[in-house]
Amino acid sequence: MTERSTHLQLGSCDYPEHVPADRWATYARQQRELGLTFVRLAEFAWSRMEPRPGEYDWAWLDRAVEAYHAEGLRVVMCTPTATPPAWLIRAHPEILPYDAQGRVRDFGSRRHYDFASPVYREHSRRITRAVAERYGQHPAVVGWQTDNEFACHGTGRSYGGASAAAFPEWLRQKYGTLDALNEAWGNVFWSMEYSDWGQIRPPVLTVTEPNPSHILDYYRFSSDLIRDFQAEQVAILRELSPGRFVTHNFMIFESGFDHYEVARGLDFATWDNYPTGMLEFFAPSGTGEDVKTRYARTGHPDLIAFNHDLYRGVLGGRNGLGREGAGTPNGPWVMEQECGPVNWAPYNAQPAPGAVQLWTAQAWAHGADVVSYFRWRAATMAQEVMHSGLLGHDEQPTRGYEEVAALDLGQFPVGPVPARVALLHDYESLWLYDAQPHSASMSYWAQTVAYYSALRSLGVDVDVVSADADLSGYAVVVAPAITLMTPERAQRWADAVQGGTRLVCGPRTAFRTPSGQTWAEGQFGPLSSLVGAHLRQYDSLRPGLEDAVSGGYSARFWAESYRLEGAQATHTYRGGPLDGEPAVIRHGNVTVIGAHSEALIRDVLRGVLEEAGVPTTDLPEGVRLSHRAGVTLVQNWTGQPVEWQGRTLAPVSFEVIAGA
Amino acid sequence: MTERSTHLQLGSCDYPEHVPADRWATYARQQRELGLTFVRLAEFAWSRMEPRPGEYDWAWLDRAVEAYHAEGLRVVMCTPTATPPAWLIRAHPEILPYDAQGRVRDFGSRRHYDFASPVYREHSRRITRAVAERYGQHPAVVGWQTDNEFACHGTGRSYGGASAAAFPEWLRQKYGTLDALNEAWGNVFWSMEYSDWGQIRPPVLTVTEPNPSHILDYYRFSSDLIRDFQAEQVAILRELSPGRFVTHNFMIFESGFDHYEVARGLDFATWDNYPTGMLEFFAPSGTGEDVKTRYARTGHPDLIAFNHDLYRGVLGGRNGLGREGAGTPNGPWVMEQECGPVNWAPYNAQPAPGAVQLWTAQAWAHGADVVSYFRWRAATMAQEVMHSGLLGHDEQPTRGYEEVAALDLGQFPVGPVPARVALLHDYESLWLYDAQPHSASMSYWAQTVAYYSALRSLGVDVDVVSADADLSGYAVVVAPAITLMTPERAQRWADAVQGGTRLVCGPRTAFRTPSGQTWAEGQFGPLSSLVGAHLRQYDSLRPGLEDAVSGGYSARFWAESYRLEGAQATHTYRGGPLDGEPAVIRHGNVTVIGAHSEALIRDVLRGVLEEAGVPTTDLPEGVRLSHRAGVTLVQNWTGQPVEWQGRTLAPVSFEVIAGA
Amino acid sequence: MTERSTHLQLGSCDYPEHVPADRWATYARQQRELGLTFVRLAEFAWSRMEPRPGEYDWAWLDRAVEAYHAEGLRVVMCTPTATPPAWLIRAHPEILPYDAQGRVRDFGSRRHYDFASPVYREHSRRITRAVAERYGQHPAVVGWQTDNEFACHGTGRSYGGASAAAFPEWLRQKYGTLDALNEAWGNVFWSMEYSDWGQIRPPVLTVTEPNPSHILDYYRFSSDLIRDFQAEQVAILRELSPGRFVTHNFMIFESGFDHYEVARGLDFATWDNYPTGMLEFFAPSGTGEDVKTRYARTGHPDLIAFNHDLYRGVLGGRNGLGREGAGTPNGPWVMEQECGPVNWAPYNAQPAPGAVQLWTAQAWAHGADVVSYFRWRAATMAQEVMHSGLLGHDEQPTRGYEEVAALDLGQFPVGPVPARVALLHDYESLWLYDAQPHSASMSYWAQTVAYYSALRSLGVDVDVVSADADLSGYAVVVAPAITLMTPERAQRWADAVQGGTRLVCGPRTAFRTPSGQTWAEGQFGPLSSLVGAHLRQYDSLRPGLEDAVSGGYSARFWAESYRLEGAQATHTYRGGPLDGEPAVIRHGNVTVIGAHSEALIRDVLRGVLEEAGVPTTDLPEGVRLSHRAGVTLVQNWTGQPVEWQGRTLAPVSFEVIAGA
Ligand SMILES: [Zn+2]
Ligand SMILES: [Zn+2]
Ligand SMILES: [Zn+2]
Repeated sequence: MTERSTHLQLGSCDYPEHVPADRWATYARQQRELGLTFVRLAEFAWSRMEPRPGEYDWAWLDRAVEAYHAEGLRVVMCTPTATPPAWLIRAHPEILPYDAQGRVRDFGSRRHYDFASPVYREHSRRITRAVAERYGQHPAVVGWQTDNEFACHGTGRSYGGASAAAFPEWLRQKYGTLDALNEAWGNVFWSMEYSDWGQIRPPVLTVTEPNPSHILDYYRFSSDLIRDFQAEQVAILRELSPGRFVTHNFMIFESGFDHYEVARGLDFATWDNYPTGMLEFFAPSGTGEDVKTRYARTGHPDLIAFNHDLYRGVLGGRNGLGREGAGTPNGPWVMEQECGPVNWAPYNAQPAPGAVQLWTAQAWAHGADVVSYFRWRAATMAQEVMHSGLLGHDEQPTRGYEEVAALDLGQFPVGPVPARVALLHDYESLWLYDAQPHSASMSYWAQTVAYYSALRSLGVDVDVVSADADLSGYAVVVAPAITLMTPERAQRWADAVQGGTRLVCGPRTAFRTPSGQTWAEGQFGPLSSLVGAHLRQYDSLRPGLEDAVSGGYSARFWAESYRLEGAQATHTYRGGPLDGEPAVIRHGNVTVIGAHSEALIRDVLRGVLEEAGVPTTDLPEGVRLSHRAGVTLVQNWTGQPVEWQGRTLAPVSFEVIAGA
Repeated sequence: MTERSTHLQLGSCDYPEHVPADRWATYARQQRELGLTFVRLAEFAWSRMEPRPGEYDWAWLDRAVEAYHAEGLRVVMCTPTATPPAWLIRAHPEILPYDAQGRVRDFGSRRHYDFASPVYREHSRRITRAVAERYGQHPAVVGWQTDNEFACHGTGRSYGGASAAAFPEWLRQKYGTLDALNEAWGNVFWSMEYSDWGQIRPPVLTVTEPNPSHILDYYRFSSDLIRDFQAEQVAILRELSPGRFVTHNFMIFESGFDHYEVARGLDFATWDNYPTGMLEFFAPSGTGEDVKTRYARTGHPDLIAFNHDLYRGVLGGRNGLGREGAGTPNGPWVMEQECGPVNWAPYNAQPAPGAVQLWTAQAWAHGADVVSYFRWRAATMAQEVMHSGLLGHDEQPTRGYEEVAALDLGQFPVGPVPARVALLHDYESLWLYDAQPHSASMSYWAQTVAYYSALRSLGVDVDVVSADADLSGYAVVVAPAITLMTPERAQRWADAVQGGTRLVCGPRTAFRTPSGQTWAEGQFGPLSSLVGAHLRQYDSLRPGLEDAVSGGYSARFWAESYRLEGAQATHTYRGGPLDGEPAVIRHGNVTVIGAHSEALIRDVLRGVLEEAGVPTTDLPEGVRLSHRAGVTLVQNWTGQPVEWQGRTLAPVSFEVIAGA
Repeated sequence: MTERSTHLQLGSCDYPEHVPADRWATYARQQRELGLTFVRLAEFAWSRMEPRPGEYDWAWLDRAVEAYHAEGLRVVMCTPTATPPAWLIRAHPEILPYDAQGRVRDFGSRRHYDFASPVYREHSRRITRAVAERYGQHPAVVGWQTDNEFACHGTGRSYGGASAAAFPEWLRQKYGTLDALNEAWGNVFWSMEYSDWGQIRPPVLTVTEPNPSHILDYYRFSSDLIRDFQAEQVAILRELSPGRFVTHNFMIFESGFDHYEVARGLDFATWDNYPTGMLEFFAPSGTGEDVKTRYARTGHPDLIAFNHDLYRGVLGGRNGLGREGAGTPNGPWVMEQECGPVNWAPYNAQPAPGAVQLWTAQAWAHGADVVSYFRWRAATMAQEVMHSGLLGHDEQPTRGYEEVAALDLGQFPVGPVPARVALLHDYESLWLYDAQPHSASMSYWAQTVAYYSALRSLGVDVDVVSADADLSGYAVVVAPAITLMTPERAQRWADAVQGGTRLVCGPRTAFRTPSGQTWAEGQFGPLSSLVGAHLRQYDSLRPGLEDAVSGGYSARFWAESYRLEGAQATHTYRGGPLDGEPAVIRHGNVTVIGAHSEALIRDVLRGVLEEAGVPTTDLPEGVRLSHRAGVTLVQNWTGQPVEWQGRTLAPVSFEVIAGA
């Protein structure tokens, strides 16, 4: 149903229910005139679809869909389950989730449901079926978005109620016996052993921190709930809306569930890209205020690109293609693209002139087939009145609109992203790492982004892929923070190295067992023979305390050293408690960097990339290169002109140049 | 009953129940000897008035009142409802309020009641009647204070219990139909539409922020409860204590209710003036640590003066006179005046030598007829032992006492404050602004005080008046942050401008509708034709990010630009996303300042004041002028001598000079 | 049973239940070979001792004890009551404590019980009896540790449940009548008077701060619960394990109970010494980030030494000897000694090379007879996987192990610590001080440590003793922050001064009555005639605001002045609100320092010490002297070599030199 296109396409998120019906035809015409070809509808419209229990009202939505259809716009329809209406919640308050303080979270905003609630599951299926029956085969409808931004606002887990009730049975299914569970969690530690499944509760309001293995399984359990919740919707949509795509709009740096699990079964992933709010609100721990100020009007290129590369690969396809092949709007998309200030960060700056175009071009270069702006017109009511749109409150075009109007889409051909480097990512490692970071300045995202950013500063394209992905064919694989290691994962990595891939690991790699304990033989557990070393010491560094490393480097926040068993040290610590011990080690094609130093990471990666024949370029601060479909996108993210390879790059701008 | 005086009078807050009965006569005599003529009594004495349910004990209070009467002191009696006793609370725990985390707030300090509690309302009327019957016509009693510091400690709203139960009915009275409510709140936004009044709860513990319209109505509802609670007491006092004044002691920068509503029905307003604690604890967001340190021993003159000017005008009279005319202790008062360190701020410095006299003089110059020090003797028990008094714990005179003793009251004639400039204030705007500040460094108070302080630095007297006040006769009206605009308000402003008044508005003026949405035609809604412009862009600026403005100015924290429709730009932005767009606009006698820059605000105001024939003076840092009854109070709030117009002003001092 | 030793002995904390049984014999042998002679066992092993209600399993522990016994190790056995198992908690959820937010604290970590719970008390006695019957007379068992780290994680008080239920009766026992209680608490203040015992609740969730007298009695009540809880265990252990010592492992700077009360009945005290985590996590308010960075790898010598000196004296013996006399492992011990990074601070640095030896030597010099390292092998599971041990996760010796192996214990003879100076400490003063600190930068610990550190920087040995201790024989007694004064205490101090002791007091001394009010005659209440002065003014100083003192000093955070009544001023304030008033006063052999200035405190103390004939030395930053048994331990806590008295002290090192 969706026509193929040879270049990037655009859309917007529109909410006909928020404006008088007489605006619909006008908006649809304006969207077409602006060059938009997609529109997302009905995301939060449950109370209008079903104003009272079982009483559906489709008339308004029929008219709205027709209005867009009449202008040739292709509609992405939504299941409205992110916003169950008041009548449902007040009739079934047991749907409400619990927060991490053990309090019931009330109706009055959005996402006020527990994924485990049997009642809510039933209503989710019912409303999905109803909307799918109505619009599943409508000629304007080309695809579906499930719910909205799973886990946003800390809703990935509910710490009581339905989730608490369901947890023991999930554990029983997993472990079979309490002995197995007690052993896996190490519950003997503080006499935390259970003698009845019903004794087990969510890891909340404990006197001091809960057992990290308890946390890990609660996160897995909660993630499975989201996966199953969505799978029920997807099954209904597949049945009632054949030939349409089904996707979800994922969040920035969201850690509330295992995205690899939840994305499975979708056609492609989309995500919601708010570069300025991302830097202000979602930036990894340790991001300096100076960086936040310098990039306040554009966001940081690597934070944004990381999410693009993550969601391009979240379904596992090598270059992120969905089920219908290249050249179709089949993914990934940016489902919601900032086109002016957001409203939800502590500060919400106006984007720089050119930023909306730069973001759009970057999205394309990192694999997006469609970029859909949020939102068509700024809302005049409720929680998001301070958020911008392509039209202002007064329906006047904003600067964002003007930048979109000036875009030449023909310069953005669709096609593969030619990454020869993979960066490994793993939600279970993220959960364990952040449950016990051991250094207030470190986190999984901080460590992962440091390696990603080093690669990007060298002009390298990166696939972010699952730590369990097939790695064959990659010249270099980087594992910044894969702290949980399974024997299978270790074997897969060893196979890749055996096949000629070069592997670079960050600190804390393979520190943990699958149940969240440490390997009894110590880091690197089952990866030890590949690495040719064991952990010797780790050092958690407060700001101001650093560990010097040979070659003039200095580790901040984290440093670890190794006992060599075959590997060789390429860098050693100088002075301090790790004096003379290995900081970076090499064992054949495997390198481990134990010292957290951005300069060191970059230099080691440059060396490995050069060995592997992956070309690198030393890019100036704020300049980035991305490649797609045989062309190169050169980007200047700074507010100043930059001289680069004989060109002058204008502030906040891009150029598409031939050749990769 | 209250004799008229031609000059300022003094009093103190005394608690005979806190000391042995043998001290009462001594204290009364000492107070008379110090020159005090008023004493406030029995503020928190419920458990002594009624030790057990229905069992009154007046003997002690009779004796105490007689002791003060014998020395000629005039008594302000209190309704003791800020402190319901344990027997009442434990018998009726449903009186207890809920905090914003949904928790019941327990007995054990003060203000532990929900204004909506029917049981508490009944007991409030009962104890008011009992105390009024006993003392309403006592010759020593000249007036009444209701309760104490409404809304202090976040008690302006209860988020559960009785308030939660009463809210739906208040809404039903206001809206009539749920359709009207859903429309007014924009509940369609996230399917927040209600289909039954009983579904509606306080805006608390929602998953993410609640609807600002929901917040706005909850704040209005809560404010109405306080208004009605007090009105019941006032009616009883009017009945049983004829000829006496009734007032309330309001708080510093309190936003817990609409003071214009609650003050109505009182004879005049009083407030509790703690300059050092105010700066440390209540200063608007964005007040620098350097300012807090520089004025740590005096408080900031403009923060204090703002509250004086606010409460002088809160009853609506042009120069704050109460019902009995000028020259009487009829208001406003300072009911509690700091005379030494407070105990409730993070730091509680000793006032500078001279500060108590300076505060007293300033209070007079801004309209106070009576200044009553808190408290006579420092408490030797319970929560406020660290708070100072005119006497120390040991009954020795403190520095505050000595400064009061040295005051020459004859230099402080009562009479009108001759303000020709009005600054507009509005609690609904405050609530909406702070519900969605959009910039962590901005707030309603910060923006309002910035304009107020600019006026004061120019030597200008200011009436702070309701945004709906009669503005006729003012040369200049300043509306720093009136973000909620009604058609009636817009018309009133237009009438004033038509009548020759000059109007200066700050950013975000007229951004919101009465229900808290934004105007569909955009800012300035119904004020647009008066302003001759619409909003173009707003820019929320993190510290370190600024927007340059022509003339060498630089906007911090907030900048907005306009699309001209008749107005002309007097200043434009230079560079950045607002480049070339209007920053300050002028349309006839109306000026709008979109850029938050203290220097720009001051310079624009100076120009408008000069046009309007209001004289201005460029005062040095920390020097202020205030005028009353034909004389001028020159104040030096700094710790250094200041040369000014040929005089040397001693550190922390004042001079009263003839002429206004 | 415990053989006497002439020098320091070592041990470790081991958890056989955490590792396979086949490791036990190996570990025991390794411990013996390392020179350890003690091992602490079974601290948290309840779920293994009693896997199901009433079903005991001793087989594993029998085997473990035998394994250690076979190698000649002496066992300290534990009552496992810090970790009640799940079956007990789920059967009796009323055991669970409440936090200071009024929430039930759940099972899933440790210390999840309310000391007041009758059910838990019964089970505590039962399991204590069971384990004591099994091991009380085992030849390997030489002593007992009760529970673990009372009050850790804020568990010293429960704010609901069983504690709330028991509080009124405790009050009734104490006060007899409600009139007495209301009077003692000053409840008239805000009508907080009670008319029924049942009306009284814990001081929690009050609208604003609770009455400090209410807090004080709740803390006393809670402390009594801990005392009684432990006393029940001690009685059983005395009965069933004759000839063995009983101790408890106390916490760093713990304020959750009165340690003098709880320690009574033990043979000696032990404590858990984590120098790096102490500095990062437990350092008193006001400790600079620069100090935390400078000493990140050693901890601060004075914070550590203070705890040594505190616990050496907590049983009241003059030099901390237990019941069996000097030369035995009879106390004090360090029960848990850091030997590598901890896991529970925001940052957890590796100790400097030499730090483990330095800590061990310091512990000995401050009176420890035994130092027991935590833990033998790093845990591979659960909450503390990031914590170090003498062996790593991989059973490899750590740097800590290597430092222990290299220790020459013969250089550490046991014997008395020859302190001629006592520093007074009082938990009730601590509670009152911190309930109303009046300055965000001050606290009881900060003030106390400032005086302690000044003494230590002068090379002086200090006994930390109860404010009610027998002071006879001390040359100088320092009372840094004894704000609660009883007539008996005042008399005891006067007697000491009469006997020739010199007394130096800090600010706020004798400000409060035993019930937490202020003295009606003002500070110094019953101590006034001894001091020869009364308080005049106190000044709470924000950072950046200082009060100059004659002699070139400057007070930070706090300054108070006096009205002389016999005393003489040795230093006066210069400028500011205290200008010309006394800052330091002297009355015979009593000195009071009102200004908080580290330099002033040190200089005044130096003068008094010299007068008293106590020799002083001006030590360089980071150098410390300690004396024991006739020898001197010279310590360099800095990372650089230090020249001192003709020696070069290596970085992070010590020397034992002959002579005291
Ligand atoms: Zn969204
Ligand atoms: Zn008050
Ligand atoms: Zn421990």
